[in-house]
Amino acid sequence: MFYHVKETQFNVRVSKPDPRFARLMLEQFGGANGELSAAMQYFVQAYSCKNTYPEIYDMLMDIAAEELGHLEMVGATIQMLLTGINGEMKDMHENAEYNGVMNGKAAKEEFIHEALVNPQFGIISAGSVILSDSNGNPWTAAYISANSDPTVDMRSNIASESRAKIVYEYLFKYTDDPWVKKTLGFLMTREITHYQQFEAALQTIEPNFPPGILQGNQKYSNTHYNMSKGDKYNGPWKEGMSTQLKEEWQVCDDAVKQADETNGLLDLEPKGTDRTDKSIEDLDKKLSEERSTKVREANPEKDQQWTQFKKKKK
Amino acid sequence: MFYHVKETQFNVRVSKPDPRFARLMLEQFGGANGELSAAMQYFVQAYSCKNTYPEIYDMLMDIAAEELGHLEMVGATIQMLLTGINGEMKDMHENAEYNGVMNGKAAKEEFIHEALVNPQFGIISAGSVILSDSNGNPWTAAYISANSDPTVDMRSNIASESRAKIVYEYLFKYTDDPWVKKTLGFLMTREITHYQQFEAALQTIEPNFPPGILQGNQKYSNTHYNMSKGDKYNGPWKEGMSTQLKEEWQVCDDAVKQADETNGLLDLEPKGTDRTDKSIEDLDKKLSEERSTKVREANPEKDQQWTQFKKKKK
Amino acid sequence: MFYHVKETQFNVRVSKPDPRFARLMLEQFGGANGELSAAMQYFVQAYSCKNTYPEIYDMLMDIAAEELGHLEMVGATIQMLLTGINGEMKDMHENAEYNGVMNGKAAKEEFIHEALVNPQFGIISAGSVILSDSNGNPWTAAYISANSDPTVDMRSNIASESRAKIVYEYLFKYTDDPWVKKTLGFLMTREITHYQQFEAALQTIEPNFPPGILQGNQKYSNTHYNMSKGDKYNGPWKEGMSTQLKEEWQVCDDAVKQADETNGLLDLEPKGTDRTDKSIEDLDKKLSEERSTKVREANPEKDQQWTQFKKKKK
Amino acid sequence: MFYHVKETQFNVRVSKPDPRFARLMLEQFGGANGELSAAMQYFVQAYSCKNTYPEIYDMLMDIAAEELGHLEMVGATIQMLLTGINGEMKDMHENAEYNGVMNGKAAKEEFIHEALVNPQFGIISAGSVILSDSNGNPWTAAYISANSDPTVDMRSNIASESRAKIVYEYLFKYTDDPWVKKTLGFLMTREITHYQQFEAALQTIEPNFPPGILQGNQKYSNTHYNMSKGDKYNGPWKEGMSTQLKEEWQVCDDAVKQADETNGLLDLEPKGTDRTDKSIEDLDKKLSEERSTKVREANPEKDQQWTQFKKKKK
Amino acid sequence: MFYHVKETQFNVRVSKPDPRFARLMLEQFGGANGELSAAMQYFVQAYSCKNTYPEIYDMLMDIAAEELGHLEMVGATIQMLLTGINGEMKDMHENAEYNGVMNGKAAKEEFIHEALVNPQFGIISAGSVILSDSNGNPWTAAYISANSDPTVDMRSNIASESRAKIVYEYLFKYTDDPWVKKTLGFLMTREITHYQQFEAALQTIEPNFPPGILQGNQKYSNTHYNMSKGDKYNGPWKEGMSTQLKEEWQVCDDAVKQADETNGLLDLEPKGTDRTDKSIEDLDKKLSEERSTKVREANPEKDQQWTQFKKKKK
Amino acid sequence: MFYHVKETQFNVRVSKPDPRFARLMLEQFGGANGELSAAMQYFVQAYSCKNTYPEIYDMLMDIAAEELGHLEMVGATIQMLLTGINGEMKDMHENAEYNGVMNGKAAKEEFIHEALVNPQFGIISAGSVILSDSNGNPWTAAYISANSDPTVDMRSNIASESRAKIVYEYLFKYTDDPWVKKTLGFLMTREITHYQQFEAALQTIEPNFPPGILQGNQKYSNTHYNMSKGDKYNGPWKEGMSTQLKEEWQVCDDAVKQADETNGLLDLEPKGTDRTDKSIEDLDKKLSEERSTKVREANPEKDQQWTQFKKKKK
Repeated sequence: MFYHVKETQFNVRVSKPDPRFARLMLEQFGGANGELSAAMQYFVQAYSCKNTYPEIYDMLMDIAAEELGHLEMVGATIQMLLTGINGEMKDMHENAEYNGVMNGKAAKEEFIHEALVNPQFGIISAGSVILSDSNGNPWTAAYISANSDPTVDMRSNIASESRAKIVYEYLFKYTDDPWVKKTLGFLMTREITHYQQFEAALQTIEPNFPPGILQGNQKYSNTHYNMSKGDKYNGPWKEGMSTQLKEEWQVCDDAVKQADETNGLLDLEPKGTDRTDKSIEDLDKKLSEERSTKVREANPEKDQQWTQFKKKKK
Repeated sequence: MFYHVKETQFNVRVSKPDPRFARLMLEQFGGANGELSAAMQYFVQAYSCKNTYPEIYDMLMDIAAEELGHLEMVGATIQMLLTGINGEMKDMHENAEYNGVMNGKAAKEEFIHEALVNPQFGIISAGSVILSDSNGNPWTAAYISANSDPTVDMRSNIASESRAKIVYEYLFKYTDDPWVKKTLGFLMTREITHYQQFEAALQTIEPNFPPGILQGNQKYSNTHYNMSKGDKYNGPWKEGMSTQLKEEWQVCDDAVKQADETNGLLDLEPKGTDRTDKSIEDLDKKLSEERSTKVREANPEKDQQWTQFKKKKK
Repeated sequence: MFYHVKETQFNVRVSKPDPRFARLMLEQFGGANGELSAAMQYFVQAYSCKNTYPEIYDMLMDIAAEELGHLEMVGATIQMLLTGINGEMKDMHENAEYNGVMNGKAAKEEFIHEALVNPQFGIISAGSVILSDSNGNPWTAAYISANSDPTVDMRSNIASESRAKIVYEYLFKYTDDPWVKKTLGFLMTREITHYQQFEAALQTIEPNFPPGILQGNQKYSNTHYNMSKGDKYNGPWKEGMSTQLKEEWQVCDDAVKQADETNGLLDLEPKGTDRTDKSIEDLDKKLSEERSTKVREANPEKDQQWTQFKKKKK
Repeated sequence: MFYHVKETQFNVRVSKPDPRFARLMLEQFGGANGELSAAMQYFVQAYSCKNTYPEIYDMLMDIAAEELGHLEMVGATIQMLLTGINGEMKDMHENAEYNGVMNGKAAKEEFIHEALVNPQFGIISAGSVILSDSNGNPWTAAYISANSDPTVDMRSNIASESRAKIVYEYLFKYTDDPWVKKTLGFLMTREITHYQQFEAALQTIEPNFPPGILQGNQKYSNTHYNMSKGDKYNGPWKEGMSTQLKEEWQVCDDAVKQADETNGLLDLEPKGTDRTDKSIEDLDKKLSEERSTKVREANPEKDQQWTQFKKKKK
Repeated sequence: MFYHVKETQFNVRVSKPDPRFARLMLEQFGGANGELSAAMQYFVQAYSCKNTYPEIYDMLMDIAAEELGHLEMVGATIQMLLTGINGEMKDMHENAEYNGVMNGKAAKEEFIHEALVNPQFGIISAGSVILSDSNGNPWTAAYISANSDPTVDMRSNIASESRAKIVYEYLFKYTDDPWVKKTLGFLMTREITHYQQFEAALQTIEPNFPPGILQGNQKYSNTHYNMSKGDKYNGPWKEGMSTQLKEEWQVCDDAVKQADETNGLLDLEPKGTDRTDKSIEDLDKKLSEERSTKVREANPEKDQQWTQFKKKKK
Repeated sequence: MFYHVKETQFNVRVSKPDPRFARLMLEQFGGANGELSAAMQYFVQAYSCKNTYPEIYDMLMDIAAEELGHLEMVGATIQMLLTGINGEMKDMHENAEYNGVMNGKAAKEEFIHEALVNPQFGIISAGSVILSDSNGNPWTAAYISANSDPTVDMRSNIASESRAKIVYEYLFKYTDDPWVKKTLGFLMTREITHYQQFEAALQTIEPNFPPGILQGNQKYSNTHYNMSKGDKYNGPWKEGMSTQLKEEWQVCDDAVKQADETNGLLDLEPKGTDRTDKSIEDLDKKLSEERSTKVREANPEKDQQWTQFKKKKK
């Protein structure tokens, strides 16, 4: 169940209206990396954790609820930045068809110009917030990721928080309002906080690499393919040891030749790795047993009830 | 600010898994007429009411928060209906590439068949809820309406509640689980409740017809055009008095002839109505003044602060 | 079958080109609340009425055809507002790659500026109308609602007409062209007309509340939940009688406590209502029989033919 | 203005319901290559032709109106194929929450199975047609093309008709109903007719290649680049003369080498062509003058009126 | 397998940044008729040709790969046109919340104005290219067509190349940069080349009209329906012989009367054609046998391997 | 420039057709986490790195090109899994309208059933691959992220690879074909490889936390808000030190009270951190200077040329 409390978490203020910046702020309201994306992603991910990882469920719901509050704060900022348009749009008399000629033309020109920043501010929401991004694309659930495995979902969240953080960073550049900047600073900082919380949650699951259960095939896991000809650069993604499996990087400069010589890699031999078919199969088996047992024990199939209610005295 | 409370509003239960019905229930989770649509529509509409119609703001936020809780309940039902899939998906060992031949083939065939009901239950969410409709379309904000005028928004909400109600009604047909039916019954009933609440709110604004400020032109407001030839039917939409303006219906059977004779209606004379240019202009003027004043007084433009915090002792 | 007649229903005129207003008008061409949405919504709804409610089918088709004509009129207005761009775009010689330096640079700058209002006016439609909204989102059938029950569909239509009306109202504010205003006035008025027609049609079906067949559960139908803390407002949505079922509003300020005390509402007792399990079941039964019989009798399943043709002499 | 006539152009009939085929037919109702796509594409294209190419405007409107009628016919077929579902969905009594246990379970199972073909047939449209494709994607205006030049638009239409034709062809494979096949045969044939009509219209404009005004650069117009290594095939797209410009095909097997040797083609010399900078510039100039003059003369910018009404006696 | 080579096919250059034109160029990067649409359409079509029409597969892959290179070139142009924004966006210090007041306000105002051309250039991609069209719509696979029949697909491609050509043509109008024009000229010319290549490929398949296998019904193939009343125009789409089937055009001015007299065309007699039921059935049969045999022989179902690798010496 | 080589990187094989699994594999062809998403994400990200981080540009292009090859391999698998449908669809004779009665009805029933798995396999692509996900949603660029900062983009990529990996893992469960499993194993492993490569690239940039330039505010960076009431769980996301900034976690159980007491956090004092306004401002300044200088030096604005061609002898 969700409750709304009329106070916001942070003191959201605006010095004066600014429809142009309101349009940019939409990116964090109904945009791909905005607050609704965050809230919905964590909320949807939480379902698969509820019984199996109840402590992660609790964290996801904490942060999802906080993000809903941030959505409200972003919307509040946009709403205040648009103040004046709605009043204007309720003053329709002189614009009706009975009036062929306009008074106050200059002011109207300016008003029109402002409204054109996002035409739907003028003619759909009439000076109110819209659930779209800064280009007018309605928010879509295609933005969110939830794959029922915290070793994947926590990484999706770390990336989401990184993107949300940098969009707030970029937004600073487009406003001079010191009050709006305070709000941006708070919201940007919270993404940094959540990033670290998801990282901490990821580390409670061991092993967490590779994400999921299955180990990768040792024949293909440490080869860099040079598919982009013309300059040659080096880096730790093709030299030395790989970051997680600690295998030695191999470089293949001619993938066609390699494929031809190995019947399309079927006859390839692993190099620079200690992992074997046996060691991998053992890990696959061990993790399958551990994780599937954990899920099954926590989620009995019959006669399920989502919440246990506490019978209290009336 | 939003809080989440782990209890649900209603006791959500499921007798046994049923992926087919889970797919249908998605319609109320991430579908056009589902709970997220309701929650987001009322939440977004609330912004324009906050200062101007604070009592409607309060009601919209009450219902938006309740709908978020219903979203959670619908998701909980789907999640429980899918129980078993996630456990199966964590048991990957025998499926890895090292195992060319499968055991337990018959059971697997059946499992595959169930998963195919919505393939993303099998390979994306792995037995967890997805923010899409029953056909897999991700939720989009194109579903919601908010036009910054309660005489419009309340009507949008009445229609939304009507659609949500009938989708719950239709869903009854597709499940035998008595516990799921209890939940459907509760959720369906709440739509009926909200419908009446939005209707009551609409009635607090007078006049509320036509929606918005401007009165329609009396020359075109009471004519039914017969543009669909072949049968002739009558009804109160072309006979007698119109429902709100109480004008007498006129029927035009030949719109081309009418247009030709009146220079494209420019020379048309009103019939069956008492409304005049003067009476309309007066109403336009009066409503413009009333409503724009109300908005402007409630929404000063300078140094805005969304919430007033109460300084309490620490 | 549809016929097109080259006359428009109303005399559509434009004093001079105005690409900025053309962009705004797109909202009523390919936007969520525009004329294509109206035409397609009524057209699609009509199918389920054809045999069961032939008089409503007739009305829906009348209005759908009229709305197609309005779509044409909106498009005609936009097209005339863009006059000049297409001619310019066919004058490509000086712009080809053979000419590094431009003549008439100032004029071109201005031309570019106008085109940037909606870039696709410049480089896709080359000064012609586009089937998208004012922000460039292509029209999508996600905008329309049709649920095969006139007690729902008529309400969807009342809301759609309300939204279309207010968008026309808002548009007045952004043009000074007296001829365009005449057209806006006509189109806005027709939405008011159609609103009343759908309302009249809804009233021909009794009972029409709640929409559909099933009555709501009397335990949950008259409670307002206070889920939005911080201020307290009253209103007829929580005080007095509900608008349709005439039950007495109950207010619950602590939904968690209520749920805990009633095992998630399962043990809740109805209050402030005369409706009973028996009275509801009787109504459900009666309506099921009436409505399903009506549908089945009107729609035999075998050897169906959509139109009966009249054999005429050649 | 559009009129609807209740007769369909062709005698649309269905022997017996078939929800599976109904789902497939949706492809031609709300699908990418379906009848709404055709109708809207021609309707939108018509605007730019109205004054400049009035005879093509007339043809586009003829065919657009016919396609709207075909949309109706496809919808009528789907509606009849779904007969029975709506009646069932109005018979809700035994499914309400008061009834924990179901009668007629076997029949219901089958009903559910049929409905699952497209879940929205069951729970959204309740046995009625939906404006989406066979996979449930709502129709979107992203499907249509209109570029304000008949040498482009007619070619878009030829392609659209080709696609619509083959989808009807494929549909034959999935029904045994002889009446439905008659309808498919009629609709498929009309696509063949329209194809030829658009081709004839294209030929009335000379020259029509390349589409638009500007001639291509003779240095790059007749080279085939071999960018796909591994097998060598020949064909008239790299041997002999090009189809329209009648230049001799050149083949470049090493685009990198060519770019390096010619400073990224800037120093490339034309081969196998008689076209020159001069001949091209002359053509560009001539066509620019002809076509822009034609557009400008036909579309005066001031005081535009879409239709001229004939003042008739009342 | 795809390789990337760092050289571009053509020397892509930009004289100086121009965010406004960058926005327009997006249309050819992530727009409906842009280079990704072309590349993906040909790439996806190629699959059905691989075994059945290997020479067309080769051509489609040649052109698909070339179009990917053009996508890169368009993106490179946009990227260079946006130079400066990214550097600005990495200079965040003075914008952080610690600084309430801005220096260099005028410059910033201008910067903001430029960024507003497409807000996502400012706050999402920070001066880099975006995979959307000029209005910010993300690229969607709804733009591409592939129907597994080269007589359809080649025609889709001819139309796609026509549209891509004219969008490049229109773009010339909006830039003065002579270097950018050189690139536009090259890219536009290549569309003309590809057009002719697809036409040549179409001609290698005989017969190729009607597209696909099935012949149309001779009763409906040569009638023009006059559904658009008000003016009368003639043209080769209703007079003389049809372009491909060489049947004599018939005109029906009253489709309702015709339908009534022929029981919805069921009793219609063919006119102006030599085609008969027998000749059509023969052609259907012949083509079915030829084409299905060709497909089946080229695509054995068992133990398929996509590539045959050549075992080379190591 | 891109080249296509007809060999695939890995030996893609299929034992026998399986349309059901083909549908599931679509998820990795045109789905949110599929190969096109990967290829396009890295390709688009590469632009902002080209001059500033040329070694990361090289790596992104290497992997983008490899992913295009994987897209081809996934498509090849789907294509082979659908073998047989296309041949059937070219055998249209017996299905034409001349044949009211079908032979081989049982076989056809089965064929229809298979096709219904994804109806567009039957009637759009006719047994060929489609650029959509397993639910038929066309691929959209809304799936990709590119924010012009490698400290963000590399994290987006790590998350993308994690998701792609687990979808391949889940797919294993739905096929018994040992050859298909080999391909899944190869592709899954490559995601593990790329994950580590992006992680290595991220580590070459120091500092890389927080992503971007600006440091978060020390007042808000280490507080966990308990917004989800009902159970209490602990974890390293609220206890001990934060993962990156090494600040001590603070827990706030009553955000409303905290906001009320601190004027909406404006008066909040930092706790559990050594970071100060000064230390943060210094870091902001230092990073701004370093990073913006790096970008500006690498990207001069005038007379830009994407590639330097090497003049070779002809």
